[in-house]
Amino acid sequence: MTEADRIQRLVARFGAASDRVVVGTGDDAAAVRVAGGVTVTSVDAVVDRVHFDLATWPLAAVGHKAVAAALSDIAAMGADLGEVYVAAGIPRSLGEAEFDQLCDGIAAAASGATIAGGDLTSADQLWLSVAVVGYAADENAIVTRDGAKPGDVIVVTGTLGGSARALELIAEGAQHDNLRLQKQFAPQPRFGAGRALAANGATAMIDISDGLARDAGHIGDASGVRLTISLPQIPLDAGIEDAKFAAASGEEYELLATLPAEKLAQARAAVAETGVALTEIGRVEEGAGAELQGTNGEAVAVRGFDHFD
Amino acid sequence: MTEADRIQRLVARFGAASDRVVVGTGDDAAAVRVAGGVTVTSVDAVVDRVHFDLATWPLAAVGHKAVAAALSDIAAMGADLGEVYVAAGIPRSLGEAEFDQLCDGIAAAASGATIAGGDLTSADQLWLSVAVVGYAADENAIVTRDGAKPGDVIVVTGTLGGSARALELIAEGAQHDNLRLQKQFAPQPRFGAGRALAANGATAMIDISDGLARDAGHIGDASGVRLTISLPQIPLDAGIEDAKFAAASGEEYELLATLPAEKLAQARAAVAETGVALTEIGRVEEGAGAELQGTNGEAVAVRGFDHFD
Repeated sequence: MTEADRIQRLVARFGAASDRVVVGTGDDAAAVRVAGGVTVTSVDAVVDRVHFDLATWPLAAVGHKAVAAALSDIAAMGADLGEVYVAAGIPRSLGEAEFDQLCDGIAAAASGATIAGGDLTSADQLWLSVAVVGYAADENAIVTRDGAKPGDVIVVTGTLGGSARALELIAEGAQHDNLRLQKQFAPQPRFGAGRALAANGATAMIDISDGLARDAGHIGDASGVRLTISLPQIPLDAGIEDAKFAAASGEEYELLATLPAEKLAQARAAVAETGVALTEIGRVEEGAGAELQGTNGEAVAVRGFDHFD
Repeated sequence: MTEADRIQRLVARFGAASDRVVVGTGDDAAAVRVAGGVTVTSVDAVVDRVHFDLATWPLAAVGHKAVAAALSDIAAMGADLGEVYVAAGIPRSLGEAEFDQLCDGIAAAASGATIAGGDLTSADQLWLSVAVVGYAADENAIVTRDGAKPGDVIVVTGTLGGSARALELIAEGAQHDNLRLQKQFAPQPRFGAGRALAANGATAMIDISDGLARDAGHIGDASGVRLTISLPQIPLDAGIEDAKFAAASGEEYELLATLPAEKLAQARAAVAETGVALTEIGRVEEGAGAELQGTNGEAVAVRGFDHFD
């Protein structure tokens, strides 16, 4: 297959391009009609034996995770999904059927988006670099990391811990159809919840890719405040009993946000309409960074996180 | 250096971000204020030992070429330059000084753009994936590959052949400061010329990455016409005497365009104002693909191009 054939096979996985896309793949560049407002763009790369391992990962999962990780950044800005651009280094050993599986995963994750461009090249090691573009009405409609205020409540979507547990199961050689692996093999960006939080008072938002504890620290650092999170309040995935394990679990792609306490009820209702639970897990205080607290308010360290400044 | 440190070093190479960039690196995604119109986006990837070879290439040249190749696609649409997003796989063997050289090349090529995002990861083999975004007032202001009409003249910017010659010199072990290597080590996208051609009647346009002959075929195929190019009219780089060599030379990043004959004089004048020569090299006819003709109008084959259908 030539590169053009492969890009065509990839694009064929997608439905009709949105009306916004004036020029799709096959020209020098994609052209997209924009109404004005704000575009939101993120680039995310994954590499074999760094972010996944072809020895234990199905190719569909590799494609799915690469695209979902990039899309999750758009969701975390509270923006609408637009276009996806996929660059990939493909080892010569990867056959046609395997390439199709990779495309299946990319297409499944990008459902609702238009794949508007790509560049495929040979490489010794499989890698994907996914650029995603989203849209918002104006600057006030997006939620960055730097707006958390003392007194805000801290909320998180969904449940945590399942992603780290899935990694353990993969390492243990679990069957690929084990549904618990879906948190790694087919993560779901929280677009609806992101928009709902942005529209209902979120002052800061981030997607959980480094783990709740570290990502809370990112909001705290960017906002110049301290995020104090109560471990017993962290919503746990089914079968997860250790809140510290859940707080350290990366690549969850749930959303962590802050908002004024008086907006909590309406935000929870709006997020619930997207089929996702929203749980209050702490408070924003004066200070810096993030702190996890146990049942009696004592500071608790979690794996990969010892940020008590 | 952590990834955040490295991205910071890369961003530090750039001047002030444009006013358009509302949120730059350091949040989930970049946010860019757009006035409406059309965005133009392209993704281009380069891999060690596929598109360059670290054994014979300086790291600054690797960065420069990766970004220039992506930007050239924006120039070929006739659009204005906006933002650059750089994803890269960096081998652990690449030291701090070498990473700085890579950044130097990226920054030199992206001069005038804002680097608005990035993702750096470790990898066994050096690769870069560059996403670039440009802007145009509306759909009519961009030039695609599919608008060439029978009767149009065919024009090309600059001179050709130097890029293939530079590859030969690199293979022969030429000193890196040999100015003839600049066509490979520091290619210059033709932004000014692209805008001038778009504003002065260009019906189709492409940047020469696969070689004049093959890229003419791309316009012919997309437009449903035949591009007939006269070999003796091809403008040759200093020291290049074989027009067939020049017609096969890829990665020239000059622009190949078609336009109505009556617009030729004004287009040439507008392109000249950007400091670039514009040369008429042929005619668009009924038919398909592209044909190269010798002094007596005979069809001529060139290396890597035998497209006489």
